[in-house]
Amino acid sequence: MTDREADGRGASETGDPLLLTPGPLTTSASVKRAMLHDWGSRDRTFLEMNERVLARIAGMANATATHACVPMQGSGTFAVEAMIGTMVPRDGKLLVLVNGAYGTRAARICARIGRAVATLETPEDTPPDLAALERRLAEDQAITHVLAVQCETTSGILNPVEEIATLVADAGRALLIDAMSAFGALPLDAGEVPFQALAASSNKCLEGVPGLGFVLCERGALAAAAGNAPSLALDLADQQAVLEKTGQYRFTPPIHVIAALDQAIAEHAAEGGVTGRGARYAENCQVLVDGMRTRGFETLLPDELQAPIIVTFRMPADPAFDFTRFYDGLAARGYLIYPGKLTVAESFRIGCIGRLARADMEGALAAVDAVLAEMGVTSVAA
Amino acid sequence: MTDREADGRGASETGDPLLLTPGPLTTSASVKRAMLHDWGSRDRTFLEMNERVLARIAGMANATATHACVPMQGSGTFAVEAMIGTMVPRDGKLLVLVNGAYGTRAARICARIGRAVATLETPEDTPPDLAALERRLAEDQAITHVLAVQCETTSGILNPVEEIATLVADAGRALLIDAMSAFGALPLDAGEVPFQALAASSNKCLEGVPGLGFVLCERGALAAAAGNAPSLALDLADQQAVLEKTGQYRFTPPIHVIAALDQAIAEHAAEGGVTGRGARYAENCQVLVDGMRTRGFETLLPDELQAPIIVTFRMPADPAFDFTRFYDGLAARGYLIYPGKLTVAESFRIGCIGRLARADMEGALAAVDAVLAEMGVTSVAA
Repeated sequence: MTDREADGRGASETGDPLLLTPGPLTTSASVKRAMLHDWGSRDRTFLEMNERVLARIAGMANATATHACVPMQGSGTFAVEAMIGTMVPRDGKLLVLVNGAYGTRAARICARIGRAVATLETPEDTPPDLAALERRLAEDQAITHVLAVQCETTSGILNPVEEIATLVADAGRALLIDAMSAFGALPLDAGEVPFQALAASSNKCLEGVPGLGFVLCERGALAAAAGNAPSLALDLADQQAVLEKTGQYRFTPPIHVIAALDQAIAEHAAEGGVTGRGARYAENCQVLVDGMRTRGFETLLPDELQAPIIVTFRMPADPAFDFTRFYDGLAARGYLIYPGKLTVAESFRIGCIGRLARADMEGALAAVDAVLAEMGVTSVAA
Repeated sequence: MTDREADGRGASETGDPLLLTPGPLTTSASVKRAMLHDWGSRDRTFLEMNERVLARIAGMANATATHACVPMQGSGTFAVEAMIGTMVPRDGKLLVLVNGAYGTRAARICARIGRAVATLETPEDTPPDLAALERRLAEDQAITHVLAVQCETTSGILNPVEEIATLVADAGRALLIDAMSAFGALPLDAGEVPFQALAASSNKCLEGVPGLGFVLCERGALAAAAGNAPSLALDLADQQAVLEKTGQYRFTPPIHVIAALDQAIAEHAAEGGVTGRGARYAENCQVLVDGMRTRGFETLLPDELQAPIIVTFRMPADPAFDFTRFYDGLAARGYLIYPGKLTVAESFRIGCIGRLARADMEGALAAVDAVLAEMGVTSVAA
């Protein structure tokens, strides 16, 4: 899928270092070439492109009949804040299931925008405690909404959104899903997993460029949320009302980002949609984990909790292992990895998503060997 | 600057219709080509590019010593909401000078985010009443901040921000400027025009692509505003604290948009900076206004109030003139214009900004002739 020179250096189709990160990530050359034009933001050509993008995103979650796909300029966090601010009523209360930085951030958003919030925390390597969730919902009748993070990229853990959704629905509460790093690669069917809203973005598993988020919102709940958001820019109900009336954004859309996403979604479909995309990432992840374990590295998570998105490895104990040298050595060979974000252990992360395939992961492993040799690391046990 | 075929059709360097709009607008091919790569958002290559962009933007307003340039993902409205929410204290009060849709929107933002607000309105073709502003500031001591729109693209009017700034400073209040459609083409020197904050964006006179705003914030006032914003995503003080500590965005930046802006700023400098850019736009505007007047069209504004950004023309009275046909006819010839936004009169708008020069404006005028003939319009008096 990408060109690698004879010396094992990683390079994308456009000659850039490969991004083994949780995003922004390596995109195809054709996705980037889609940005080589200008469009009027209120002209039909762009509006048709935008309509197609939003419809296809809703289709990926089988949500076309039930949910509106509302775009939101900015990063994924803008979409998450818009989702919380629009969907949780002013007298509502959000319970956030926290096992990493993105759950923590959602709770921080609530505090800032003036929404009552509670958290149910588990350690970063542990899925939410479903029994505790059930008890909490029974005990605290003020809770109107629950927020779950589908894949917490802090660790790379896959949280059981399906079970959480059933439990929340049974308790008569509404579920918000932060699906940022999973959407487009891990299946989530609105017909089977009840959710009120789900936030994701252009630059993760859809393999577009960053600059646009979107939120799938249950149509009835969204209409009822008019005037609720404590922000004009981040008001999904207002955006949807304008979209329905005119097909337009309220405020200048990131047109080139949307053009890239249109192409990225066509390539997603050509790869076999969510199933095909997920299969490639699963293979990338397997090659990476197997290869790193062969070299003595330890993953934070057991395989059954590992999402095929990003893998956390424990930092080797060998004093010859220096993370900055490791990062720089891999970067010099065309592989950009990611520092750890764990609070509980020294670690680093390597991503499996983006325009990467088996050969790229094998190239990264060869680069790891070269850098370990350069540093004189003899054992990589954590 | 752009290619036009023998039949007088407008086309950009990349073969797209020319955008005679208030933005997004026609950009150079080289600006768009700058997006043909991927970068890691926490990698040095991108961070250096971002640092250069922010430093050069501050330099354009001679604000380097006094103001921080804080980036904000999203459209210009996101930057304006971030500016108001961060800089106006929770017990502050903002007086908005309104003579068009952008002033009205700023007041709407205040109502949404829970900031006390008052407006001082003049008609869309009339600058703010400075004597009334002085009286209002003397009478209402609760007002802490004043917001002025430098160029109100509703009409295209140039508001006297210099006089407003002096008056606001003399009254001991802080000034916020929405410079969205003027920044980079109309001079504004922080050493001469006192302002606490100024918001602008990537895709107007800087000729980048849309997706990023920025706010120049007085350093002391910004530091004092920590924790003030009623939003996490739109908190400029929090973003600046992280930038100072790590050089990074808090949340995924629109990397390709920033790469395009980096190239756009290099081209801005090569053209002679604000002076050179402003001179080209002034020539575009003069060619357009003269040509349209020769054809009988009337501008809304007298020349002394007209900013060289976008021109509002009164709708011709001739029943043979149909705006949809006029728009479509121009679009078919490669010129996208803009509908009017006035509340007081039927009108349409033609922009002068973006990668356009005299020949493009002359081409647009030739297209106007062709479409008028097609419609059988004999007189275009309003």
